[in-house]
Amino acid sequence: MTSKLLYSVSISLDGYVAGPSQSRDHPLGVGGERLHEWMRTLAAWRSNAGQAGGVENENTAVHERDENVGALVMGRGMFCGGPGQWDPEWIGWWGTNPPFHLPVFVLTHHERAPLNLEGDNDFTFVTDSAEAALAQAKAAAGDRNVKVIGGAFTVAQFFREGLIDEFLLHLVPITLGGGARLFADPFRADLRYKNEWVVVGPGVTHLYFARED
Amino acid sequence: MTSKLLYSVSISLDGYVAGPSQSRDHPLGVGGERLHEWMRTLAAWRSNAGQAGGVENENTAVHERDENVGALVMGRGMFCGGPGQWDPEWIGWWGTNPPFHLPVFVLTHHERAPLNLEGDNDFTFVTDSAEAALAQAKAAAGDRNVKVIGGAFTVAQFFREGLIDEFLLHLVPITLGGGARLFADPFRADLRYKNEWVVVGPGVTHLYFARED
Repeated sequence: MTSKLLYSVSISLDGYVAGPSQSRDHPLGVGGERLHEWMRTLAAWRSNAGQAGGVENENTAVHERDENVGALVMGRGMFCGGPGQWDPEWIGWWGTNPPFHLPVFVLTHHERAPLNLEGDNDFTFVTDSAEAALAQAKAAAGDRNVKVIGGAFTVAQFFREGLIDEFLLHLVPITLGGGARLFADPFRADLRYKNEWVVVGPGVTHLYFARED
Repeated sequence: MTSKLLYSVSISLDGYVAGPSQSRDHPLGVGGERLHEWMRTLAAWRSNAGQAGGVENENTAVHERDENVGALVMGRGMFCGGPGQWDPEWIGWWGTNPPFHLPVFVLTHHERAPLNLEGDNDFTFVTDSAEAALAQAKAAAGDRNVKVIGGAFTVAQFFREGLIDEFLLHLVPITLGGGARLFADPFRADLRYKNEWVVVGPGVTHLYFARED
């Protein structure tokens, strides 16, 4: 099976993946945490996060699906925040044992030596291009898939270059009124996907798309 | 049954209901007609439009559902085009016997006497507010529903004022790269809907939303 580039995100009816006024205090923007309520109420999610309780419903199987991921890609913003927040000693938001347990490729303009943290969390900093980060991630993933995990700006770059093979929208039918759009204007006009499957769960509709060439 | 305000629209993955550069020559903008291909290939649609051929598939039942509509609302732009294109003699784009066969309320800043065309196409021009147009349409519809049919600017006004009770998105998984957004920035942050049902058909996914109060 060919390795694919995957992406998934919770998105509002008005197209935002984070609310307005994102900051280190409000990493998801104002109101943005409402996009993730469907997940944070799941027993499966809470158990992973070391929390008791929660529910099991139609969203559980979607949350727990096996994506066969062998490497991750993220943007500089997801690793350390916005412009001017680069700090060569910064090890990310996740402490000394991040929850990834996979090779992570960080797309950035800043050169930096690899950062190897506990739990097989190996960060490599890639400074040339989205394609270069993807090529390195695919090499690390072998025949498993690569997943780009954010933020919105980096994901948009991969979409614009036609590199996202399959993606899952968790559509939350609320409006946030502003914030970070997944598909910001101007975008490219010629992407074509096929909606492979849909699951309607409490508070969210999951739509899976695969690229049509 | 209480009369509701309904809306339906074909929308791209990147959130556009028309492509860029809309004009009288390109009323749907560049590439915008691709949003309607799922419908124009249906035998049911073609038959209504006096055209032979076409297919029957999962999209047919969605296209032919009975919405129990008793009156329509549209914006000035849909009736006559953009700013500066108001013409007191203009009877709309649809000839002397338009396809509506219902009372139509046109929201505009221009006073005009009612226009009564063949086939029970009675246009009333409402100059005060979206609420006023809706109130007049509801009076005309009795216990049937009212439907707002465009354009995007007028529909956004009804959404912003929290007046849309139920709406159907025909999500076409392509990107248009620009154009008229259904949910343009800035929007209101507190609308909540429930996804009542979903149908995945060839080339389009239909998502029906009802307002949650």
